Amino acid sequence: MQTDVIDALTRVLAARRDSDPAKSYVASLYAAGTDRILQKVAEEAAEVMLAAKNVPDASRNDSLIGEVADLWFHTLVMLIHLGQEPRWVLEELQRRFGVSGHDEKAARTTSQNG
Amino acid sequence: MQTDVIDALTRVLAARRDSDPAKSYVASLYAAGTDRILQKVAEEAAEVMLAAKNVPDASRNDSLIGEVADLWFHTLVMLIHLGQEPRWVLEELQRRFGVSGHDEKAARTTSQNG
Amino acid sequence: MQTDVIDALTRVLAARRDSDPAKSYVASLYAAGTDRILQKVAEEAAEVMLAAKNVPDASRNDSLIGEVADLWFHTLVMLIHLGQEPRWVLEELQRRFGVSGHDEKAARTTSQNG
Amino acid sequence: MQTDVIDALTRVLAARRDSDPAKSYVASLYAAGTDRILQKVAEEAAEVMLAAKNVPDASRNDSLIGEVADLWFHTLVMLIHLGQEPRWVLEELQRRFGVSGHDEKAARTTSQNG
Repeated sequence: MQTDVIDALTRVLAARRDSDPAKSYVASLYAAGTDRILQKVAEEAAEVMLAAKNVPDASRNDSLIGEVADLWFHTLVMLIHLGQEPRWVLEELQRRFGVSGHDEKAARTTSQNG
Repeated sequence: MQTDVIDALTRVLAARRDSDPAKSYVASLYAAGTDRILQKVAEEAAEVMLAAKNVPDASRNDSLIGEVADLWFHTLVMLIHLGQEPRWVLEELQRRFGVSGHDEKAARTTSQNG
Repeated sequence: MQTDVIDALTRVLAARRDSDPAKSYVASLYAAGTDRILQKVAEEAAEVMLAAKNVPDASRNDSLIGEVADLWFHTLVMLIHLGQEPRWVLEELQRRFGVSGHDEKAARTTSQNG
Repeated sequence: MQTDVIDALTRVLAARRDSDPAKSYVASLYAAGTDRILQKVAEEAAEVMLAAKNVPDASRNDSLIGEVADLWFHTLVMLIHLGQEPRWVLEELQRRFGVSGHDEKAARTTSQNG
């Protein structure tokens, strides 16, 4: 279903390199530089930890979902800022786990690295 | 193609709930519990920061790619351990950015939240 | 002389529990609660890491010194907010290392835990 | 009472620069280098967060006290590894808060920066 969300988001974030930092949050992060982006990654990781500690049960928890979204989002911004392709991360995860979007059987039967 | 990887990986990680902690790293994390998983999330976030600070230029940097893979991986384990669906995070990112794997135009033209 | 500073600072921070959160940063942290204080601890730890990575040489680095001061300060606020005495931390360090302000020889000759 | 704990600990940690990394944990950190020490700082900050979230009430909590001791200890190791004097951090805190081990009245009446 959510095919290509990360690809699509990568295109959006890459396009923000040409945006006005006064008008785009992402462009303002690029302009502020690597340390500022890494501060945000660290802050969002901490928010994830706190939200996870506050999860009361196994029902859907929008706070935790939102914080993980923030964390992944800022890691995407970081990757693009540093010239790295987010799809390389997914390819690395595929490689490690022997999973593939095209070959679900592999996903269901693999045992490598898990 | 890409985020089918996350669906496939989710299935792999969910299946590990039935694995022997002595034989599966993922099963050992589930068995160790939330705090241990959150320690790993924090450690990997720190590794991402250090790897990012050590990136010399915009060419592909396998160290940083590997650390981001570790971070995303451990957040997936955390989500599954706490009963949350990783695809909810991707849906949240889609919602925020108006991007869709099925509608790339949206990805190229949206300006919300960016 | 030095850690009397921590005793003195503990008294200042404890007294802030009666201050107006609108007028005192420390009182505003107490009012915001544990999660907000822990966010600050995490943020300052990240700032320490980035400042440390940016240290060019072994000369005095006011940026790093300032960030470590921020980190220790927010851990003191956290301890007091949670009813813990900061001097217990110093006593624990003393215990582990066999050091004592009154017995400097111990500090110079001990080898435990180091 | 705990006067000079940090001074004494600084001397112990500085002396470890001449120790065998195979026999001294501190010497092994110096030998492993800045990134390894910063990983430990980040790990201990995360442990502090988790321990703080697990504090049940305001009675003495040895787990949290121990984790803060670990965090402060590793920041001391980091400072010394990077050629910085830990007492500079205490002097910075003194400066900010107008507190002094020698002048407790200042500690009790100051309102700067708090």
